[in-house]
Amino acid sequence: MKRIAVVDTTFARVDMADDAVRALRSAGTGFRIQRRTVPGIKDLPVACRQAITEDGADLVMALGMPGRADYDRTCAHEASLGLQLAAVLEGRPIVECFVFESEADDPRALETLARRRAEEHALNAYALLFRPDDLRRRAGTGQRQGWADAGRLRPR
Amino acid sequence: MKRIAVVDTTFARVDMADDAVRALRSAGTGFRIQRRTVPGIKDLPVACRQAITEDGADLVMALGMPGRADYDRTCAHEASLGLQLAAVLEGRPIVECFVFESEADDPRALETLARRRAEEHALNAYALLFRPDDLRRRAGTGQRQGWADAGRLRPR
Amino acid sequence: MKRIAVVDTTFARVDMADDAVRALRSAGTGFRIQRRTVPGIKDLPVACRQAITEDGADLVMALGMPGRADYDRTCAHEASLGLQLAAVLEGRPIVECFVFESEADDPRALETLARRRAEEHALNAYALLFRPDDLRRRAGTGQRQGWADAGRLRPR
Amino acid sequence: MKRIAVVDTTFARVDMADDAVRALRSAGTGFRIQRRTVPGIKDLPVACRQAITEDGADLVMALGMPGRADYDRTCAHEASLGLQLAAVLEGRPIVECFVFESEADDPRALETLARRRAEEHALNAYALLFRPDDLRRRAGTGQRQGWADAGRLRPR
Amino acid sequence: MKRIAVVDTTFARVDMADDAVRALRSAGTGFRIQRRTVPGIKDLPVACRQAITEDGADLVMALGMPGRADYDRTCAHEASLGLQLAAVLEGRPIVECFVFESEADDPRALETLARRRAEEHALNAYALLFRPDDLRRRAGTGQRQGWADAGRLRPR
Repeated sequence: MKRIAVVDTTFARVDMADDAVRALRSAGTGFRIQRRTVPGIKDLPVACRQAITEDGADLVMALGMPGRADYDRTCAHEASLGLQLAAVLEGRPIVECFVFESEADDPRALETLARRRAEEHALNAYALLFRPDDLRRRAGTGQRQGWADAGRLRPR
Repeated sequence: MKRIAVVDTTFARVDMADDAVRALRSAGTGFRIQRRTVPGIKDLPVACRQAITEDGADLVMALGMPGRADYDRTCAHEASLGLQLAAVLEGRPIVECFVFESEADDPRALETLARRRAEEHALNAYALLFRPDDLRRRAGTGQRQGWADAGRLRPR
Repeated sequence: MKRIAVVDTTFARVDMADDAVRALRSAGTGFRIQRRTVPGIKDLPVACRQAITEDGADLVMALGMPGRADYDRTCAHEASLGLQLAAVLEGRPIVECFVFESEADDPRALETLARRRAEEHALNAYALLFRPDDLRRRAGTGQRQGWADAGRLRPR
Repeated sequence: MKRIAVVDTTFARVDMADDAVRALRSAGTGFRIQRRTVPGIKDLPVACRQAITEDGADLVMALGMPGRADYDRTCAHEASLGLQLAAVLEGRPIVECFVFESEADDPRALETLARRRAEEHALNAYALLFRPDDLRRRAGTGQRQGWADAGRLRPR
Repeated sequence: MKRIAVVDTTFARVDMADDAVRALRSAGTGFRIQRRTVPGIKDLPVACRQAITEDGADLVMALGMPGRADYDRTCAHEASLGLQLAAVLEGRPIVECFVFESEADDPRALETLARRRAEEHALNAYALLFRPDDLRRRAGTGQRQGWADAGRLRPR
């Protein structure tokens, strides 16, 4: 029985964890889901490490939604580096799923983007743990999360 | 009995630690508060680690107030990365509460912002240690600290 | 028998791993190749560390293809720092092979660039493990991967 | 008997260590001072760690003077991150005292700034080791090093 | 008998290691020199760590020559941070000697700069290991490597 932790924030304006959990459950079985919620994205790295060391997670999804200001980009950068540190130190995947408010002007479009990205990252997370061959088959095929796939550069 | 460390700076122009401590005490019991004061924000990361390893803190609040110059932003970025490092290495939450002087032109508005942010981060810190379910209930609800909450992107 | 891990992404739009593997095999023998595929470049550092600690790789090639947006450059920077962390912590070379979509406007030119760079980095990887003297002979000679070599600044 | 290390560079254009040492000695007793000099600011982090692990320093002052070019700012940023790493890993304070040549156009003003900043950081270093309550009393009071203090935002 | 490692790249367009080695030998005795060559500057940090842990180097010189593009600056920044990490983790000096192609337009001037900088960093490396008092005597005297020294800000 594997353990997947889903860690999210109160700062985000969309409840992406719901979509991530639904997608994980739809993908298969063989794992238990654990939840942690922290205030903001800078609180994610240590919570992800705690999810691994205290809760025994085999993989963590880190969900966040940085705002529109320049400073939000700086915070996201710092959080991303913290996530890199936690993942490399523990040797366990931390799947970062960030949606920037600036990615869409229309609230409905932004919400749809956030939900889709959470779902697609959740399917990636499942594949990392249970179906590595699925990922390998799609190597170099221009997959995107939330937006339409870019596809191979030129079909062979 | 948990231990919460509140670490602040002599560089800051508002005594945010007072407000943080008051908010922590108003939130509940079951913890002791320890204080450390360092010169500037770049001195915070090691002091936070010392608060954990030497004083046994279960959680640390790191309070700082970067100035208006470009270089202050660089220093804040370096301090934030140091805080990420300390938190991830120790596996203990370090709640960063930075207020940039450039966030408000009016001194009174800036002071109010600093006090409110310190209070609200203190309540988050309390919730991280004692009421994780309170945070989880607010996942994805657009909480902000010091400014008005942004709220959910679209009510469901 | 040495082990070389080739780690790539589903985000990339060219299957560079194929070219890397072919170039490795053409370079010599004495090694086994292991593959891992992850969703995006930020997932590479932890996968590279896992390739070393779990699969016993002596050297890892990390292949990625960041997109054209500013944010892609930020992600590549974060991934690169994660790769530095993983390589230095493990003391094993991680040969980063990134091709930015913005390096060429024409899709055919971009694909050619990606394939050549993957091949040339693969030959470098082989040399790092098996022919360090080949690298030393070329010290300071302006080698490039994917583009034409720059050459020595002035022939002696 | 505590040990304070003062680490400086041959790159700096003012001998700030002299002023730092004088200020430390004027502040009190109970410590021995150790000196190390390295070529440039990027050599400071490892020298600071060596001062802690090899010389047994309880606190390190890291003095540097980056030049006026853009690249000097990058080097200072890299050095600062290295200092964060060393301080957090060792759990010992490293008081960074950098003076940028671009902070003053007039050489005499720049020298005065460098000397004052070194002195005031030295007094902070002494307080960190021997008089933590002095720092705490000045929490949130807008202290500056080298320039006039900014003071509290609004007197209470 | 001390060990000094000289690590350089095939990317560089000048064979700076030759000049570094010559300068080291001219400076004195009591050390053996070990060489490693890697493809590019991002491969330097792990090679420097290997030089310390596998070859027993007491000090490493890391020589590199970033190109003229913006991305080369990013790579140099990432490599520098990796070098900081390796040096601080090992507690051994890694003397970074980077020459940017953009530092001089004329090829002959650039080559002269590269050779002089390598020599002067080599002398610094020797002093770090064998003559720390020489460095200390020059503290705060505005030394530069490759360019003319800046000198003290104002003679005393």
